[in-house]
Amino acid sequence: MTTSTRIVLASRPHGAPTAENFRTETTELRTPSAGEVLLQTLDLSLDPYMRGMMSEAESYTSPIELGQTIVGGTVSRVLESADPAFGKGDLVLGYAGWQTHSVESAKNLLPISATHILDKGLPRSAALGVLGMPGFTAWSGLENIGKPQAGETVVVAAATGPVGSMVGQIAKLRGARPVGIAGGPEKVAHLRELGFDAAIDHRADDFVDQLTGATPDGIDVYFENVGGKVWDAVLPRLNTYARVPVCGLVANYNSTSLPDGPDRSPALLGRILARSLTIRGFIQREFAPTQTAAFLAEIAPLVADGTISYREDVTDGLDNAVEAFTGLLEGRNFGKVIVRVAD
Amino acid sequence: MTTSTRIVLASRPHGAPTAENFRTETTELRTPSAGEVLLQTLDLSLDPYMRGMMSEAESYTSPIELGQTIVGGTVSRVLESADPAFGKGDLVLGYAGWQTHSVESAKNLLPISATHILDKGLPRSAALGVLGMPGFTAWSGLENIGKPQAGETVVVAAATGPVGSMVGQIAKLRGARPVGIAGGPEKVAHLRELGFDAAIDHRADDFVDQLTGATPDGIDVYFENVGGKVWDAVLPRLNTYARVPVCGLVANYNSTSLPDGPDRSPALLGRILARSLTIRGFIQREFAPTQTAAFLAEIAPLVADGTISYREDVTDGLDNAVEAFTGLLEGRNFGKVIVRVAD
Repeated sequence: MTTSTRIVLASRPHGAPTAENFRTETTELRTPSAGEVLLQTLDLSLDPYMRGMMSEAESYTSPIELGQTIVGGTVSRVLESADPAFGKGDLVLGYAGWQTHSVESAKNLLPISATHILDKGLPRSAALGVLGMPGFTAWSGLENIGKPQAGETVVVAAATGPVGSMVGQIAKLRGARPVGIAGGPEKVAHLRELGFDAAIDHRADDFVDQLTGATPDGIDVYFENVGGKVWDAVLPRLNTYARVPVCGLVANYNSTSLPDGPDRSPALLGRILARSLTIRGFIQREFAPTQTAAFLAEIAPLVADGTISYREDVTDGLDNAVEAFTGLLEGRNFGKVIVRVAD
Repeated sequence: MTTSTRIVLASRPHGAPTAENFRTETTELRTPSAGEVLLQTLDLSLDPYMRGMMSEAESYTSPIELGQTIVGGTVSRVLESADPAFGKGDLVLGYAGWQTHSVESAKNLLPISATHILDKGLPRSAALGVLGMPGFTAWSGLENIGKPQAGETVVVAAATGPVGSMVGQIAKLRGARPVGIAGGPEKVAHLRELGFDAAIDHRADDFVDQLTGATPDGIDVYFENVGGKVWDAVLPRLNTYARVPVCGLVANYNSTSLPDGPDRSPALLGRILARSLTIRGFIQREFAPTQTAAFLAEIAPLVADGTISYREDVTDGLDNAVEAFTGLLEGRNFGKVIVRVAD
């Protein structure tokens, strides 16, 4: 019998999650039945969408039930297989969540060899970040919705994160002019290293003026992953026919009530009309089944040869996942947040 | 010399326009120079967008200046031509505005013969409605943004108007299920005659419940031309991947301030994300240069053979234009509003 340590949802957060909302449990795992495998989690991805799933409010995914293991993308090692597709020692991609071991249906797993990430000398955790869900979110949001053209201005916030940094670098590849927004001078400096044409600190008192100065020709694509005051600053600068892929609203995730009035939603619709804007929500899984291969074919070689940079913020041990997660929601991470659960 | 009577913007309305915002003037017109024609206005189209242009606030068109003739689409007769493209007696489409006569540059005019409307036995005013700007707004918004699929539910308000009635009828042609919203029992009855699968009175106390009942499978396309309480009722019923072409917000045009709080704009963005919605503002002129021919090729024969119905609300005399216009903004019209300026 294998013992799994897991972190479950103890209570629903009201505002920012705290340690009290989580509970660590240990459980004995059953032997895998036919079609199943026993996995050891190696790397766990932490992402803002998990906050949405901790609430009961309807979102794009069903909420996590109380007592249920917190969800999350993982790279795992097969310890025992009852499915012909996998053998002991194989590395697999899946959604095992916040736990050290699990029994999973083989059909929910992808062999990491299918991504050719290891063949290219990249670490397995790249499958959770630059070449995984966040990277694909950036790529598919731009390919299908943002459609940056040469010379256009593309703005993204949380720009040192795994989605934002990829948005900027892909926009640059397309000949567009990426403008990145991040918090603090160290991150802003990193944006310049990544090739952003302009980098802005949202903590600066003159943030709005800086954004205006950095977008003299307005904004053609705003890749929305934060909401809040960044969105307020961007909206008046969106050009006619601007496109706004909306993949996340992390600034709102911890909100417990709507902001005070006036109600600006009619003004938002009015702006959409006046500027012929396209605002389009999306989740990467809409495009993943048909476009992941094209994404990997274009981007994996560019990551391997260093054309595209990425940065990971690694926390050791599942015990530290809660702190890493609350830090992520506050923007304290610097790069893709990975919890190294085992080596 | 020809005398023109014209209606100019006397003052900017604060809320709903009143007679005081307009002033009637007479002016002597000069003889047309080379490349110009002298026109007599026959039919003047009244449309909600004109309200937006009476305000100084930035919209999708430049505001009308004080003292300037109110704009508007027209069918006119050529009285005198100094351009080889037009001869005396020709009927032309243009934007002569709220005046009995005008001197226009020939390059801003289209011979009505180019539309083949008269060849099909249809009245010239059809070029301002069902086969003109409003009809094309409906068609192009559905073709490019709404993209109704067979079996999908398409909702439109102001559904007896020239845009809404066309949205419903085109949706039906595409195999979708149109649900129309209008004000009052007479209009609701007319929606059923037009082939809408369901018709709802927005003045009914149980309007929201009626909308819920009429859209048991949710809403896939909402063609937004009104905003306000209809939008509020529609938003929670939009399905994943629903499309919302936004061509007008007549409920907001007379607003002088934003509604009281809370500020629902973050909730609107949240819904766009949670449901992978597409909200897209547009003005028909984005598509007109490249798609008008396809529109006329499909729709003109269907109007001529009666497959597509349309209804006009004709007011006689430019003197009555102001009253017809304020009625239009209040939804007192029943069909496309035309002012018959001359025969």
